[in-house]
Amino acid sequence: MLALAAARLGFDVAILTPEADSPASRVAAHTLVANYGDEQALAELAKLCAVVTFEFENVPAAVVAGLQAAGAEVAPGPKALAIAQDRVLEKSFLNQIGVPTVGFHQVDTVADLTAGLDLLGAPALLKTRRQGYDGKGQVWVRTVSEAEAALESLGGGDCILEARAAFVREVSVIAVRNRSGAFAAYPLAENVHENGVLRVSTVPANVPPETETAAFAMARKLVDGLDYVGVIGVEMFDMGDGRLWVNEFAPRVHNTGHWTLDACQVDQFEQHIRAIANWPLGPTTPFAAAEMTNLLGAEVETWAELAAEPDARLWLYGKRDAKPGRKMGHVTRLKGRFPTTGGA
Amino acid sequence: MLALAAARLGFDVAILTPEADSPASRVAAHTLVANYGDEQALAELAKLCAVVTFEFENVPAAVVAGLQAAGAEVAPGPKALAIAQDRVLEKSFLNQIGVPTVGFHQVDTVADLTAGLDLLGAPALLKTRRQGYDGKGQVWVRTVSEAEAALESLGGGDCILEARAAFVREVSVIAVRNRSGAFAAYPLAENVHENGVLRVSTVPANVPPETETAAFAMARKLVDGLDYVGVIGVEMFDMGDGRLWVNEFAPRVHNTGHWTLDACQVDQFEQHIRAIANWPLGPTTPFAAAEMTNLLGAEVETWAELAAEPDARLWLYGKRDAKPGRKMGHVTRLKGRFPTTGGA
Repeated sequence: MLALAAARLGFDVAILTPEADSPASRVAAHTLVANYGDEQALAELAKLCAVVTFEFENVPAAVVAGLQAAGAEVAPGPKALAIAQDRVLEKSFLNQIGVPTVGFHQVDTVADLTAGLDLLGAPALLKTRRQGYDGKGQVWVRTVSEAEAALESLGGGDCILEARAAFVREVSVIAVRNRSGAFAAYPLAENVHENGVLRVSTVPANVPPETETAAFAMARKLVDGLDYVGVIGVEMFDMGDGRLWVNEFAPRVHNTGHWTLDACQVDQFEQHIRAIANWPLGPTTPFAAAEMTNLLGAEVETWAELAAEPDARLWLYGKRDAKPGRKMGHVTRLKGRFPTTGGA
Repeated sequence: MLALAAARLGFDVAILTPEADSPASRVAAHTLVANYGDEQALAELAKLCAVVTFEFENVPAAVVAGLQAAGAEVAPGPKALAIAQDRVLEKSFLNQIGVPTVGFHQVDTVADLTAGLDLLGAPALLKTRRQGYDGKGQVWVRTVSEAEAALESLGGGDCILEARAAFVREVSVIAVRNRSGAFAAYPLAENVHENGVLRVSTVPANVPPETETAAFAMARKLVDGLDYVGVIGVEMFDMGDGRLWVNEFAPRVHNTGHWTLDACQVDQFEQHIRAIANWPLGPTTPFAAAEMTNLLGAEVETWAELAAEPDARLWLYGKRDAKPGRKMGHVTRLKGRFPTTGGA
C-alpha cells in the first residue's frame, strides 16, 4: 500500500525483502530479494533510492544505521526503530518524556519476575523485550508459582512484566510528522483485538473530545521527542476516567489506520510518502465515519460477498497462502458523513 | 492507474507494451516489452492472464482477435475496438442504433470532399478515418478551394468530413457494463479542450437532469449494442436545446473520468477491473463535486504548489520526458459536497 501511494505521486519504488514473491514487489519498479543484513543489497538500495523507509519494525536498527552510513537518507531514523524494538526502552522513553504507560518491570531472572509481580500485582503480562507482535511472545502470569515456567516459555530472560490495565477501550492515534516538524493526526480509532490480533477499528472512537485532544498531545510529544519523520501508530488504553496510557507505538504505517484509505482524501500511506519525501502534509479530516475489519486466513474467501456490498471498500493483499490468522486483506465500511470536523 | 486498481483488489498484472521503461511496468508484476503484433509475446500474455484488457484504442483489433483465438478472455472485445478505430464505422454504428451524431461524409477523393462540403456546409472538419487523437490528424476546411490541399495534408484519402456542431458545451459519460449486462454511469462531466487536448473536466456538468438522463440512455444503448464489457468514455456535444450528439467514444478508461479517482468510492479504474473480472459493479455516486485539470508538459513542475493545496489531489504519472503538451499528471480539486444524488 505504501508502494501504491508512492506510484500515485510519481515516485519509483525499490523494495528490499527476504521474500521471493512478495506483494510489494508486484507493484514496485525494482526488487532486491535479500536478507535485511545483506551488505551488497543494502549498498544497492542506498544507491537506487533518494529516501529509504520501512514498513516492518523488526528490521534491525543496525541495518538502518548502516544505510545512513552508506549515504542513504532514511526516515524514520534508527532511534525510533531501536526504541520501538525494545519494550523496556520504549516504555522508559515514553515515561521520560512525560507520556504515561502501564507500570512495568524489567525481567531477566525469576527473581526479577517475582519482584515484578509483587510491585505490579498479579495477574501481569510477561512479554519478550524484543520481537513478538500480534499477541505472539507474551504470557499472563497469575501467581508467583507460575513464574519460573512462564519465564522459561519465553526463553528464560530478556523480558518485561507489564501491569494489567483495566482499560475500557483500546484506541490509537495515527500521526505524522515531516522533516520541518509539521504535525498532523487522524481522528482516534477505537480498536478491538482478538487473540492479540486486530479485528476491527472504528472511527470516530466513542470518546469525548478532551480524550482525543489528550491523545494527540501525547502523540505529538512522542514524535517530537524522537525527532520522528513519517507516520507513526500509537496504541493507547483509555482507562475511562480521563487517563490514557500508551501501550506501544509502531514506527510505521499501522493496521489501525487502514480505514484512512477509503474515508480520507489523503490516507496514511500517502502521508508517510509525503513526510519522508519532505512534501507538505495532506489533510487528515475524514469525509466519512468508518469501520475497518481485517480479513484473517480463510475469511478472505468472502471477497465476492464483500465486493457486492455498496458501502464496503475491499483491499486484498495478494498474499499467496491464507494461513489461519494471517492478515489477507481488509474491508472498510463507510458509515455516513463524519460527525465532527476531526483531525488535529 | 488500471494496474494500481487491480493491485488493490489482489490481482497480479502483466503489461504488454512497446515502451521499455513504461510507468505501468513500474507497478506491474510482469512486463513484456514487445510490439502489439509480436506473436510470441501475445501467446505469453494469453498464458499469463485470466483476462486481458487494453487502455489504448489504437491497439490493432486483429491483435485482440488473435488473443481470443489463442484462448484468452479479452474485454472489451474486438468489435468495440474495430468500430472505435474507424470514424466512419463509429458514426454509422451510432446512427444505426439510434444514437445521434454530427452529420458526416466518407471522403476518399477530392470529389467526395467537395460533395461533403456541399452536403454538410462549410466550414467542416476533415479527419483521418483512423488513428489521430488529442487534435492530431484533423483540419478545418472552410471553402471548396481548400479541399485538395486539405485532403493532401491528411494523406490524400481514407478520411471523414464532419459537420460543424454549434454546441454550447462538451460533456462526457463514463459508463460501465459487466458481463451480466449490469450498467452504471458516473454523473456527466463538462469538458474544456484546448488545441484538441482535454484541459479541464468539471463535475457536475451545468446541464438539467433530463440532459443527463438522455446522455445515460445513449451510453446504455451504445454499450448494449456493442455487447460491451468494461468502462467506456462517450464524448457528446450538448447543443443547448435538449439535443445531444455523440462526438466519439473511447473503448477504455477515459481522461474525462480521472476525477472519479478522488471524488468517488469506486473510481473508473476499479470499475473497469471489476467489470472485466466479472465482479459486481461498484457505486458511481460521488461524494464531492470536482474539477480535474490536466498537467501538460512543463506544467507538471508546479507539483510542489499543488501538493500544498489542501483540497487538491495530485497524480503524477512518472513519465520521464515532459514534452510540450504531453499529459504528465493531473490534479483534482474537490469542491464540497456533491449537490445531487448523481449516478445512474
